[in-house]
Amino acid sequence: MADYENTADGTRPKLPISAVHEAAERLKNWGRWGPDDEIGTLNHVQPDDIVRAAGLVRKGKVFSLALNLDNKGPQGGRTKFPPVGRFNPVHTMLRTGTDAYSGVLDKRGIRSADDLVLLPLQAATHWDGLGHIFYGDHMWNGYDCREVSSFGAAKAGMEKTKEKFVGRGVLLDVARHLKMEFLPPGFAITSQMLEDTAVGQGVQVGRGDYLLFRTGQMEMKMAEGNWDDYPGGDAPGLAFETLDWLQNKEVAAVASDTWGIEVRPNESDEANQPWHWICIPIMGLTMGEIFKLDELAKDCDAEKTYDFMFVAPSLPITGAVGSPVNPLAIR
Amino acid sequence: MADYENTADGTRPKLPISAVHEAAERLKNWGRWGPDDEIGTLNHVQPDDIVRAAGLVRKGKVFSLALNLDNKGPQGGRTKFPPVGRFNPVHTMLRTGTDAYSGVLDKRGIRSADDLVLLPLQAATHWDGLGHIFYGDHMWNGYDCREVSSFGAAKAGMEKTKEKFVGRGVLLDVARHLKMEFLPPGFAITSQMLEDTAVGQGVQVGRGDYLLFRTGQMEMKMAEGNWDDYPGGDAPGLAFETLDWLQNKEVAAVASDTWGIEVRPNESDEANQPWHWICIPIMGLTMGEIFKLDELAKDCDAEKTYDFMFVAPSLPITGAVGSPVNPLAIR
Amino acid sequence: MADYENTADGTRPKLPISAVHEAAERLKNWGRWGPDDEIGTLNHVQPDDIVRAAGLVRKGKVFSLALNLDNKGPQGGRTKFPPVGRFNPVHTMLRTGTDAYSGVLDKRGIRSADDLVLLPLQAATHWDGLGHIFYGDHMWNGYDCREVSSFGAAKAGMEKTKEKFVGRGVLLDVARHLKMEFLPPGFAITSQMLEDTAVGQGVQVGRGDYLLFRTGQMEMKMAEGNWDDYPGGDAPGLAFETLDWLQNKEVAAVASDTWGIEVRPNESDEANQPWHWICIPIMGLTMGEIFKLDELAKDCDAEKTYDFMFVAPSLPITGAVGSPVNPLAIR
Amino acid sequence: MADYENTADGTRPKLPISAVHEAAERLKNWGRWGPDDEIGTLNHVQPDDIVRAAGLVRKGKVFSLALNLDNKGPQGGRTKFPPVGRFNPVHTMLRTGTDAYSGVLDKRGIRSADDLVLLPLQAATHWDGLGHIFYGDHMWNGYDCREVSSFGAAKAGMEKTKEKFVGRGVLLDVARHLKMEFLPPGFAITSQMLEDTAVGQGVQVGRGDYLLFRTGQMEMKMAEGNWDDYPGGDAPGLAFETLDWLQNKEVAAVASDTWGIEVRPNESDEANQPWHWICIPIMGLTMGEIFKLDELAKDCDAEKTYDFMFVAPSLPITGAVGSPVNPLAIR
Repeated sequence: MADYENTADGTRPKLPISAVHEAAERLKNWGRWGPDDEIGTLNHVQPDDIVRAAGLVRKGKVFSLALNLDNKGPQGGRTKFPPVGRFNPVHTMLRTGTDAYSGVLDKRGIRSADDLVLLPLQAATHWDGLGHIFYGDHMWNGYDCREVSSFGAAKAGMEKTKEKFVGRGVLLDVARHLKMEFLPPGFAITSQMLEDTAVGQGVQVGRGDYLLFRTGQMEMKMAEGNWDDYPGGDAPGLAFETLDWLQNKEVAAVASDTWGIEVRPNESDEANQPWHWICIPIMGLTMGEIFKLDELAKDCDAEKTYDFMFVAPSLPITGAVGSPVNPLAIR
Repeated sequence: MADYENTADGTRPKLPISAVHEAAERLKNWGRWGPDDEIGTLNHVQPDDIVRAAGLVRKGKVFSLALNLDNKGPQGGRTKFPPVGRFNPVHTMLRTGTDAYSGVLDKRGIRSADDLVLLPLQAATHWDGLGHIFYGDHMWNGYDCREVSSFGAAKAGMEKTKEKFVGRGVLLDVARHLKMEFLPPGFAITSQMLEDTAVGQGVQVGRGDYLLFRTGQMEMKMAEGNWDDYPGGDAPGLAFETLDWLQNKEVAAVASDTWGIEVRPNESDEANQPWHWICIPIMGLTMGEIFKLDELAKDCDAEKTYDFMFVAPSLPITGAVGSPVNPLAIR
Repeated sequence: MADYENTADGTRPKLPISAVHEAAERLKNWGRWGPDDEIGTLNHVQPDDIVRAAGLVRKGKVFSLALNLDNKGPQGGRTKFPPVGRFNPVHTMLRTGTDAYSGVLDKRGIRSADDLVLLPLQAATHWDGLGHIFYGDHMWNGYDCREVSSFGAAKAGMEKTKEKFVGRGVLLDVARHLKMEFLPPGFAITSQMLEDTAVGQGVQVGRGDYLLFRTGQMEMKMAEGNWDDYPGGDAPGLAFETLDWLQNKEVAAVASDTWGIEVRPNESDEANQPWHWICIPIMGLTMGEIFKLDELAKDCDAEKTYDFMFVAPSLPITGAVGSPVNPLAIR
Repeated sequence: MADYENTADGTRPKLPISAVHEAAERLKNWGRWGPDDEIGTLNHVQPDDIVRAAGLVRKGKVFSLALNLDNKGPQGGRTKFPPVGRFNPVHTMLRTGTDAYSGVLDKRGIRSADDLVLLPLQAATHWDGLGHIFYGDHMWNGYDCREVSSFGAAKAGMEKTKEKFVGRGVLLDVARHLKMEFLPPGFAITSQMLEDTAVGQGVQVGRGDYLLFRTGQMEMKMAEGNWDDYPGGDAPGLAFETLDWLQNKEVAAVASDTWGIEVRPNESDEANQPWHWICIPIMGLTMGEIFKLDELAKDCDAEKTYDFMFVAPSLPITGAVGSPVNPLAIR
């Protein structure tokens, strides 16, 4: 760890808000894919990438990267920065096998069960859509932030991505590379660490990749048996400066096993989640949060290969700014 | 059409309930994959099938087979057999860009939007899980139907399938093969028609395939501009006798562009949806409903190939008997 | 009907928007009950009024003025101006008697049922709160309209009224007074008609009264067996000029058996629901909609008395801009 | 406290299940109000009682006995017996003042806000309906428990009570009578204590009264600032033997400031909430839970009168087994 100064020892200097604004100017992708674009860096994936990604399927094994959706999810954790309005998924039945057993369905001529979910879209494993974060009065591609009203997202709704989220996935297992069981809260992952992890793993990250990185924090919380401090609390995660690296790599999306991808406490005293300020509205980079990476990471380590076919279709909820997802890594 | 007697002319004899019970005895797969199995015919897919399916990705094009989830969905249709408790998805915002514009989010240090969906799991494009239909007092694999109570499905919940729904997809475009824009309500698709369509298309259906068949009914309703009579109304669909054919073919799952896969009005006066009685609880065959097949069908016709990689991950809602899905055909 | 010119014959001149703005200046109650007031005309009710209202209870009979909350409610109606986001209440069970019968609850040591409702607050019989309508960038009492954000109404939430809605109720049965079964869509009820009805019924409307008026439209729709055109469609209702009359009478609240109290089509081409523009944000007058008045009206007619004790407590949902209500008339 | 043996010292003998069954035989009111009755002891209230209750309104003051409905409610408490499926009310906006400010509503011609609540009916202050608890395979009046299925309560739904819950209320302030700030968890309130409290307060409890009794537990939890152990945890409450007293008094309903009215831990090792087993399905006695009694209790103490007009209308949710309520005490 001697190689990485100031990552988790509380001595990292805080970013002034001017650094955030400078990054906004430097990294702005508005117009890059035309004035009408609504999907941002998902454009980086080309048909050939999909064909090549399919070529990574060599043993026919599928890994789900999703937590189950139920009342044991992370929103039950108590935390100092509770995410407003999010709660664990509520699943209720509309008809049941006990109705069937009781004979009350027989007048319908069929014994069937149905069900219903009340689901905050960011409750568990999910994609953040490009309507999720604003920069000043604007959203992705320079659209007015008022495009996202109570009527939903008129621009960049999740339904625009319904044929995306297919391509090559790459896992950077940062915790394992650093020989740590999990990265502690406040641990900032730098570009250099991402590079070193890739080199150490013998994998390259490039244009159109779906980049997953593992901190081990989810496994730590699951071992503890409760989610306190996970949603909105301190966490390991990407340093602000990784935004340039991600821009240069031209990844399609980035996802991890934490609540919010970036390191917390915030790197700035003047912005909450400063990395988010740039990633979504400025760069148009979709992010995935609360991905369950443990089993995939073990397999990557065993195989000593870290790429795979990645298929993680969004639910096309019209006007949504997020989507639950069951991301699949197929090897 | 002269080849197919009694398909849609109202002269098909009705099935006595004894025929349903005989089919149950003949087609029962309980125990076939062990006493603890909870996924049924999804077991037909082997790792090699997944590798071969990935080999079908040749041009890197992705087709979504999902309707968008919103208040324009099929549950708004008026119908003579309204599905109890189902309604169109309700999407509401928890924070918005108009909040951002108004400055009310700035005390949180970040301008973000969040959202929520109220979603009957069978409302739009979805998988029916193996807890969805009961046969007498039993469910799939012979489990007691009381395993599906108000607490959810203790057996065969959708979360058990979270690493399934990957493999080879095959489209049988029955309507196009019969040179019809759409099959009319009440039109029974027979095993012979499925076979003839496969032969006509030059494609084989086999063990572990995800079988999609197209009736054109969804396109007809979308052209009409309303969904009246679609949910629970008369529809084209599979004849009861296709159950044996599906069993013999050992397909992993079957899906279509209608509300309920099977032909309606019912083929029996003594059972509502008699094909369902057998398919799910007896055979353990998962089915997909309200799949949007038009664009994929056009591409299959243009390419004159009817198979593709199929990835349609369920949402792992614990104890659910159904799941919304954004099924992808990847070519 | 010769007495009332231009009420329903399409010849009423449309109001220019300037008339709305003039009314706003003329009728503005901002500050009338202090700069911190959040309940408006509910302040008109004094303790003595409540004591006197209790004195109207002479036979111990209770009338509920609420529609039942279920999927047969008015939001199922098809209409040309569909209210965004409103749907009929969805009631689902969390545990059932069929669970009990099936024995699955016995491990809990008690056989019980529970339930859940998904309820748009304006779906059926309800109070519109003072946060429901804005005038320009302001709401009741001159508060900034941004007080009502996605976090709810920080000012004038329904919970502020939890000890109100008790007092004298008065029914003006306009339809019966005019010897009509129901007033037709587009029929404008004028101040003169309200006065004449009161005189004809031998009742006086005064300070602190809860004023109910009956058009008969709800009964007409219930007789028809569907709610098409009721929510947001053409309707009988109060003329714009009744605002001055209501201000002078100092009523506590006003309610009726229609979807929106005021006459529709709108009296102005430049404002949708112009009466609403003034009533709620300018005057601070709470209104009740979709009240079921038929049985109460029959009893008033039989007794030839038109006042009663009125108790219609809001549900104290924090930050709500409306509330379902089961209003009671007690005689 | 010397007068009351074994109330809270852990030495009370546990009831055998036979005592519960004997009480069921002894207290059974099935058929008492006819074979079709669906409201039980609410029948005890006669019109004259309502007239007399109105006579108790002497100063025109209204007390709400409801907690506000929001995410700070009791369901957020952690507890050893979590009530399945209950969560704090979720209030979300469908349109907002920030939408208004942002100009996005102007195309509709009116600036308005709307909202929605997701509300477990037993989440906060509520009535338990007569479909809430079963005794064996039966419910109130001997109806089959299967009348309460996933389709709701076909018998004794809350909508049947929509014109009830009006009459004389009586508060027995047990904690104050015993000169305790609050009764501790496990404290059993006996019939003798209820009698002594009534005598001490100079009030009589009789036929048709709505009986409220105060333990102070809610105030204790609110002072603590969290609800841990309140829902489903240990609590003061009525002893099992009070059922006979309530039967003899012929009260219309009973309510308190605790989660479950009866003392907890359970008085029986063989039944969870044994008092519930008898109260609802056997006696047909409606109960109110989580009533906020502090302000009313202070006023009763100051006035040295303990009765008042009580109006607590249920929401007529068709087929519901419970109802949120804003109960009003009017004096």
